[in-house]
Amino acid sequence: MAFWGIEVKPSKPYIHRYDNERGRLHISQATLGSGSSTKKSKVQCNVGDKSPIYLCSLLPEILETCTLNLEFEEEEDEVTFSVIGPHSVHLSGFFYGETDQDKFGD
Amino acid sequence: MAFWGIEVKPSKPYIHRYDNERGRLHISQATLGSGSSTKKSKVQCNVGDKSPIYLCSLLPEILETCTLNLEFEEEEDEVTFSVIGPHSVHLSGFFYGETDQDKFGD
Amino acid sequence: MAFWGIEVKPSKPYIHRYDNERGRLHISQATLGSGSSTKKSKVQCNVGDKSPIYLCSLLPEILETCTLNLEFEEEEDEVTFSVIGPHSVHLSGFFYGETDQDKFGD
Amino acid sequence: MAFWGIEVKPSKPYIHRYDNERGRLHISQATLGSGSSTKKSKVQCNVGDKSPIYLCSLLPEILETCTLNLEFEEEEDEVTFSVIGPHSVHLSGFFYGETDQDKFGD
Amino acid sequence: MAFWGIEVKPSKPYIHRYDNERGRLHISQATLGSGSSTKKSKVQCNVGDKSPIYLCSLLPEILETCTLNLEFEEEEDEVTFSVIGPHSVHLSGFFYGETDQDKFGD
Repeated sequence: MAFWGIEVKPSKPYIHRYDNERGRLHISQATLGSGSSTKKSKVQCNVGDKSPIYLCSLLPEILETCTLNLEFEEEEDEVTFSVIGPHSVHLSGFFYGETDQDKFGD
Repeated sequence: MAFWGIEVKPSKPYIHRYDNERGRLHISQATLGSGSSTKKSKVQCNVGDKSPIYLCSLLPEILETCTLNLEFEEEEDEVTFSVIGPHSVHLSGFFYGETDQDKFGD
Repeated sequence: MAFWGIEVKPSKPYIHRYDNERGRLHISQATLGSGSSTKKSKVQCNVGDKSPIYLCSLLPEILETCTLNLEFEEEEDEVTFSVIGPHSVHLSGFFYGETDQDKFGD
Repeated sequence: MAFWGIEVKPSKPYIHRYDNERGRLHISQATLGSGSSTKKSKVQCNVGDKSPIYLCSLLPEILETCTLNLEFEEEEDEVTFSVIGPHSVHLSGFFYGETDQDKFGD
Repeated sequence: MAFWGIEVKPSKPYIHRYDNERGRLHISQATLGSGSSTKKSKVQCNVGDKSPIYLCSLLPEILETCTLNLEFEEEEDEVTFSVIGPHSVHLSGFFYGETDQDKFGD
C-alpha cells in the first residue's frame, strides 16, 4: 500500500489513469482547502464518457471534511476529478499496489 | 471493481437489477444535488415488495453528504431508489465484478 | 448478502433473532423517520438481559442520518432495538447469508 | 462475533482486559448519554502507561454520535476508557471471538 | 494488532517511520485537543518530498472529531503529520503487526 493525496483546484481538473504497478486506488477522505469564501465546494467525478457524479459537498465553517470509501480500477477509462466551488479540495487515500493476480496472471 | 454513480431525481425513481457480470453493488456515498431549496431530501429504498426504508436524509447548507455502506445482491428482486424532497441526490460506489463463485460455480 | 431494513417506531421495540440461513446481521445506517417534532431520537439496543446501550442519537434538522458498523450473531440471546424520542428511526444494512462454516460445519 | 456495549460514566473509568475467548475488541460507535448539560464530553483512552489519547469529542444538541473504527488486542496492557465532561458516553462494537490461531496456535 | 495514538501539537510535527515489526499503520480517527480558541485546526501530511495534503479539518464546538481510513506502509519515505491551527489534534488507530509475508518472505 502507498499513500495517495492530491489537491484538486477550481477549474483545474485532475485526471487519474490506472496502472498495474500502483494498482487499485482507494479514496478515503476529502478536506476543504484554504480560503475565505463561505461558499460550498463539491467534488465531481467523470468516468470515461459517463455523466458526472458528485462525490461529496463540503461547507466552509460547517462541514469541512468527510470520509469517502471509493475504489477506482478502470483499466480503459480516464477518471477525472474536478471541483465546483471556490475552495480547492484535498483528496487522500492509498494505492493497493500489485495484486497476486497482476503478478501471476489469472 | 468498477465505479458506479447515479443521480436520483425527485419523482424519477431509479431501478437497479442485479447481473452476474457486474456483480454485487456497494453504495458508499450520498451527496445532495444542486438547487436553491432549503428543504431536506431523503433517499428511500424499496426491495421487491418490502416496505420502503430511508437510507439517509441530507440537509441543504447543513449536511449535504454522508457515507453509506450498503450492499445489493438481490438476484430475484428489483431494488428501487427514490428521493423524497426537492433536491436530487447523487449516489456513488462500485461493483465488485464477477466473483470466483460466479466464474466456477459453487 | 441480502438487504435488511426496518423502521423502529417509538414504544414499538423490534426483536431480532439470529438464524443460520440469513446469517450474521450487519447494520450500516440509521436515519430519522418523518415527523415535525424538533426533539432528538436515540436508538437503544438490549442484548439478552444485558443493560441497554445507545447505538446513536439523531437530531432533527441538524443530524438526521449516521453511519453504523454493528454486527449481530447472537445465537442464544434476543436482540431488541427500541427508539427513545418522538421520531421513528429507519435502520438499514444486510445479512451475510450462510457461511461455509454453516454449510460444512467446523 | 458478539455484541459489546458499555456506558462510560464521568469519573468512573472502565478497564478492558483482553482474553483469548472473546478475542479482539472492535469499537464502532460512541453516543452521548442522557442529561441536560450543554457541555461537551470527550472519551479518553489509556493503554498501559502510555499517555492518554482522545478517541472522540461529542457535543450536546450538535453532534451526539460518531463512528469509530478502533481495535484492541493488547495481551499485556490494561486499556482504560474514561470520559471528560458531564455526560456519560455509550460505546458499542463487537468481539471477533476466538481466531483459528488461538484455537490451533501459530 | 496494537493500539496507536499520538497528540500532534501546533508547530511540533510528528514523524512516523515504518518498521516491519509494528507493520502497517491504520489511522482511524482525529479528535480536537483541549483549548479555548474558536479557530479551526487542520491536520496535514507530508510523505517524503511530495506536496503536503490536508487529512482533515476540525471546527471547535461544531465538528471536533472525524473518522479517517488511512494506511501507511512507506518503507523508504518518512511520513510527517503536522497541525495548522491553534488546537492540537489527537490521532488514533492501530498497527497491523507483522504479516506472514514479513515472517516468511515473498
